[in-house]
Amino acid sequence: MSSAEFWYEFASTYSYPAALRVAALAEERRVSLVWRPFLLGPIFMAQGWRDSPFNIYPAKGRYMWRDLERTCAAMDIPLKRPEPFPQPSLLAARVALALRGEARVDFSRLVFTSEFGRGLPIGDRATLGPLLAACGVDPATTFERAESEANKARLKAECARAAAIGVIGAPCLVTEDGEVFWGNDRLEQGLDWAAGGSLGAVR
Amino acid sequence: MSSAEFWYEFASTYSYPAALRVAALAEERRVSLVWRPFLLGPIFMAQGWRDSPFNIYPAKGRYMWRDLERTCAAMDIPLKRPEPFPQPSLLAARVALALRGEARVDFSRLVFTSEFGRGLPIGDRATLGPLLAACGVDPATTFERAESEANKARLKAECARAAAIGVIGAPCLVTEDGEVFWGNDRLEQGLDWAAGGSLGAVR
Repeated sequence: MSSAEFWYEFASTYSYPAALRVAALAEERRVSLVWRPFLLGPIFMAQGWRDSPFNIYPAKGRYMWRDLERTCAAMDIPLKRPEPFPQPSLLAARVALALRGEARVDFSRLVFTSEFGRGLPIGDRATLGPLLAACGVDPATTFERAESEANKARLKAECARAAAIGVIGAPCLVTEDGEVFWGNDRLEQGLDWAAGGSLGAVR
Repeated sequence: MSSAEFWYEFASTYSYPAALRVAALAEERRVSLVWRPFLLGPIFMAQGWRDSPFNIYPAKGRYMWRDLERTCAAMDIPLKRPEPFPQPSLLAARVALALRGEARVDFSRLVFTSEFGRGLPIGDRATLGPLLAACGVDPATTFERAESEANKARLKAECARAAAIGVIGAPCLVTEDGEVFWGNDRLEQGLDWAAGGSLGAVR
């Protein structure tokens, strides 16, 4: 069974629909998925951006929000813009990284639906604690593990690895042979590649 | 019969596969297509970019060229990078705008296949003249019309219109009700929208 990495960032709008679609798409193709939360901040900083490019370039921002509306409408999922945008995603990324297996997947999906489906903030323990509890995970011990020096260092290493393998935005699907497919709209292509199947869908 | 506008820029890499795909996709959906050549330069300048963002941000550039390789391989069309990149596209845009109907379409496709399929320069009369002749159009009179003050002003107005309706990159598919779909990989979705069909394909 082949595998692929799903790199996502909690502040990233297109990571929201991707996180809700990717598991079923991977299963259809019998691709085993590794969920890898990371931060775009260091990658954007390296480009000279100190804010979301969707804020820096308003025309791109307007396009993105309208495009995301269409995307969510077609998937029949709600969309509500959180304020401020982007949301601080550092703690959520640390927590997701501190979790394993299905707990990481469940928590990640719940963060996204809370943030972009309901427009709620996701920046601190007060907003993330109830989401952890809803996943059947103990918030206190999880936050402690998430904010340990070891876990902080691990997240930094994950971000460095993302940059090193060519992850330039979120979400990205990365195959075992190192191909990077950027965007919610490229999940199928990346997973087709991972499955060793036809490239007919690549455009 | 509904219609849609296909906005393209001769220096734009993704406009190449799009220009080769879009007519058949539109025909399948019975959407009548208006080919609208324009220049991204003024739009990029407004963002503060004085070069292609693929050159300004090398990581994005590396991703784009690899992604384009996969796209062209899947379409079974050649890809050869022109030097320098981006190619100066002003004259080609003026010429395309000075042409009408099928001559504009034929010339535009030929410019793209010459530039990105064969890696040839497209910046001046010497390189564009033979392409015009291959389309059965007289080069001399066409260049004269293309570089008339009226046609130059018309291209400027086209660029201003592109910016005004939210065209933020190339290619873009713009529907009669003002929806903008950016990217070669969004042609189907834009044309589905134009045809009033299902949004099931929107992701």
